[in-house]
Amino acid sequence: MAMNVKIVLRVLGFLLFVEGVAMLLAFGIALLYNEYDQSAFLISSGINILLGGTIVYLTRNARRDIGRREGYIIVSLVWLVFSFFGSLPYVISGAIPDFTNAFFETISGFTTTGSSILADIESLPHGILFWRSITQWLGGMGIIVLSLAILPVFGIGGMQLFIAEVPGPTPDRISPRIRQTAKTLWVIYLGFTVAETLLLWIGGMTLFDAVCHSFTTMATGGFSTKQASIAYWSSPFIQYVIILFMFLAGTNFTLSYMALRGNFKRVLHDEEFKYYGLFVLGFTLVISAGLLITTQLGVENAFRDALFQVVSIMTTTGFATVDYLTWAPVLTILLFGLFFFGGSAGSTGGSIKIMRIVLLLKNSYYELRRIIHPHAVIPVKFNRQSVDAKIINNVLAFFMFYFVIFGASTIVFSFIEPDMESAMGAVATSLGNIGPGLGNVGPAENFLHISPAGKWFLSFLMLLGRLELFTVLVIFSPSFWRE
Amino acid sequence: MAMNVKIVLRVLGFLLFVEGVAMLLAFGIALLYNEYDQSAFLISSGINILLGGTIVYLTRNARRDIGRREGYIIVSLVWLVFSFFGSLPYVISGAIPDFTNAFFETISGFTTTGSSILADIESLPHGILFWRSITQWLGGMGIIVLSLAILPVFGIGGMQLFIAEVPGPTPDRISPRIRQTAKTLWVIYLGFTVAETLLLWIGGMTLFDAVCHSFTTMATGGFSTKQASIAYWSSPFIQYVIILFMFLAGTNFTLSYMALRGNFKRVLHDEEFKYYGLFVLGFTLVISAGLLITTQLGVENAFRDALFQVVSIMTTTGFATVDYLTWAPVLTILLFGLFFFGGSAGSTGGSIKIMRIVLLLKNSYYELRRIIHPHAVIPVKFNRQSVDAKIINNVLAFFMFYFVIFGASTIVFSFIEPDMESAMGAVATSLGNIGPGLGNVGPAENFLHISPAGKWFLSFLMLLGRLELFTVLVIFSPSFWRE
Repeated sequence: MAMNVKIVLRVLGFLLFVEGVAMLLAFGIALLYNEYDQSAFLISSGINILLGGTIVYLTRNARRDIGRREGYIIVSLVWLVFSFFGSLPYVISGAIPDFTNAFFETISGFTTTGSSILADIESLPHGILFWRSITQWLGGMGIIVLSLAILPVFGIGGMQLFIAEVPGPTPDRISPRIRQTAKTLWVIYLGFTVAETLLLWIGGMTLFDAVCHSFTTMATGGFSTKQASIAYWSSPFIQYVIILFMFLAGTNFTLSYMALRGNFKRVLHDEEFKYYGLFVLGFTLVISAGLLITTQLGVENAFRDALFQVVSIMTTTGFATVDYLTWAPVLTILLFGLFFFGGSAGSTGGSIKIMRIVLLLKNSYYELRRIIHPHAVIPVKFNRQSVDAKIINNVLAFFMFYFVIFGASTIVFSFIEPDMESAMGAVATSLGNIGPGLGNVGPAENFLHISPAGKWFLSFLMLLGRLELFTVLVIFSPSFWRE
Repeated sequence: MAMNVKIVLRVLGFLLFVEGVAMLLAFGIALLYNEYDQSAFLISSGINILLGGTIVYLTRNARRDIGRREGYIIVSLVWLVFSFFGSLPYVISGAIPDFTNAFFETISGFTTTGSSILADIESLPHGILFWRSITQWLGGMGIIVLSLAILPVFGIGGMQLFIAEVPGPTPDRISPRIRQTAKTLWVIYLGFTVAETLLLWIGGMTLFDAVCHSFTTMATGGFSTKQASIAYWSSPFIQYVIILFMFLAGTNFTLSYMALRGNFKRVLHDEEFKYYGLFVLGFTLVISAGLLITTQLGVENAFRDALFQVVSIMTTTGFATVDYLTWAPVLTILLFGLFFFGGSAGSTGGSIKIMRIVLLLKNSYYELRRIIHPHAVIPVKFNRQSVDAKIINNVLAFFMFYFVIFGASTIVFSFIEPDMESAMGAVATSLGNIGPGLGNVGPAENFLHISPAGKWFLSFLMLLGRLELFTVLVIFSPSFWRE
């Protein structure tokens, strides 16, 4: 069946309109602070709303059915389109005059990566800083999931879009009705964001900084309004609040929903959550011990530094309170290992994700038993249920793609950045939507010095990672376009 | 059923006897050259033959049945026992007086890794040099496979032992009778070794060097009689001969057998062989181009340097004609990627092996089609046959273990060698049974400066890699010891 191009355009039109409205929020902030970025937001918003509105009008007679293929195309395109139009405020205001840089900053925002080309963040007007944060917040829970929650446009195709934007080992669905699920997810997301804002405000941040950081924490994004990231605030209270909400953002939102409804039993018995906690605890303890041995830090300080960076990297947020490249090499390597963990399934965290790692590790361990008992059928169990071999196979395929893409991209990127550590770090942090890398793209550095080709390459990796590989890869496979 | 300890001991006794006889060959060389290592070989051989003979005598009434568990225990133990007793000539002669160093050199020999602690190889007596080479030659085709071929001791248990020593995606068996298969494999192995010896001799090597290098080429071992490795001979003829035989050693021996019997069609249609050739060609062309751009080398020289290192690393041999750490970083990284390829299934090469990589890549690619057609059953095809999901799963488990062990070992080893690149290189080269690594264990360096703890750790990784992980891991799994 031919691709339903009209519905693809129509959905994109709707979403452009949504982006234009989001820009009006930043316009409000710009008005409030009365800085030079006001007209930029007005113009950008006007472009989005007019263009989006026109497309929606012209496609009003589109057939409503969104098939599997349309779903993948829409989801892949919407992130590109959002990043393209989302970079207008930077370019028009002159905050980031170069288009490549502005696009990099925007896609790093929407994909919740958090890598930045900015070398002097504090000099930017408040509207721009707010826009940076809001791109992450919108991207965190997913543009499509947002649209499902607030727009009536998607009838029958909603599920297809949801699958394409939220692939991977499917978490329990909260509600069989996809719109209800999307709404519930966004309400929890919003609730956590408000709660964090209040706590950070109480802790001594300005209300503006508190809002921006809550947006980028809950999205596991990592953009900060300060060049020094969270290290700007030495207050342990602020750091612990951010740790708590990074951890929550990396937790399956369905679990949070159940906890909020009082179903703690379900939470405590959740295997992914258990491993998530164990990984955080284990890495934190080892790194704390390492810091105590190799530095002059006190116990609480070493523990907090370790916990903050572990949670920040593992949830793929990317905030920093210290430059981990100054740690003893083994501690840096340990932390680099965490680049390949990621948050839980159904969270806003990226990278490989805990559930995939646990499923693969379990499957490997069970294989030893299969070798000893070659005639027994020994399926992998997760949350006390047998996992279908198809899911294991899908996870395997994901894992292979992840490492092949990581390896091949490191080699390609080595032509651009001729230093193995920097290349590995830049590729791993982009693909995992983390933010800081290794070498010359570490937490104390930025991505400004990367060549334009390198920035476009990393932008592609961010998109690939945010859509968990398959959604983008499927489009490049010949059988997608056949028949 | 209780472990049949007596048969385990009996088999080990037989094999000790075999090792003692092998030492007599080195004793012959020592006599021929009349150097200081004569008595060392006589004593070592005496210990092995007497101890082995005694054990065999004492266990003469052992039950003959070798079960699955006995198989794994025997195979894991025999490599340790061989390495322990095989280090006696080094220690007794004083060539390598320190036991840790001697053990490292011996297990690096038997596992065909080829990492060396020697800093002045040319100063060693010929018997010792010959013993180094023969450890690799025995280890290459497998100690058990050798024993199956020449000893009548294994009745019903032969298959168990064969599976434990040659695990992984099973290649076509040449003959349903395991002893016949083992014999055929050894005859081809011996034939190739003789052919290479003659060619190297014609090419200008001394007969002694020709024999030693043929032993270590066919085993994909990589020990040389010269500190400079193959770079000692600038003759392109010698280098091309070694390239050819490294390539053959990394080819499935069953395929070679078929080619020798005139069945070229089977060879040309073999998928693993096709990918093996493509990988070698692809990497060689890219690296040649890189060398032409970044160095002053002529075309033939750049091609030969690239081809030699690619084949040497990919087959896990580890010979060197140049120090690849002096190449442009991207070329070194490319070559490091090859550390994770390995030879074909059923070859003497180690590491992950081509067949596993191809199966996993195919499975990932097929997954894209499964996503587009979620209700279709799309099995992986290999050599035009559907591959059982169980095999894919086994390969997946292997791959996960490989990377988890690589990652965890790199972190552990970082405590010993506080430099990320060196740690990664040492671990990858040991686990893949390659030889040279990165950083301070590169092709122009040696492993002498590694601490004793580090040497024991790497020795364990070599064993783990040589037995393709599962054989050793199974022994550490609780269910192995249950019931």
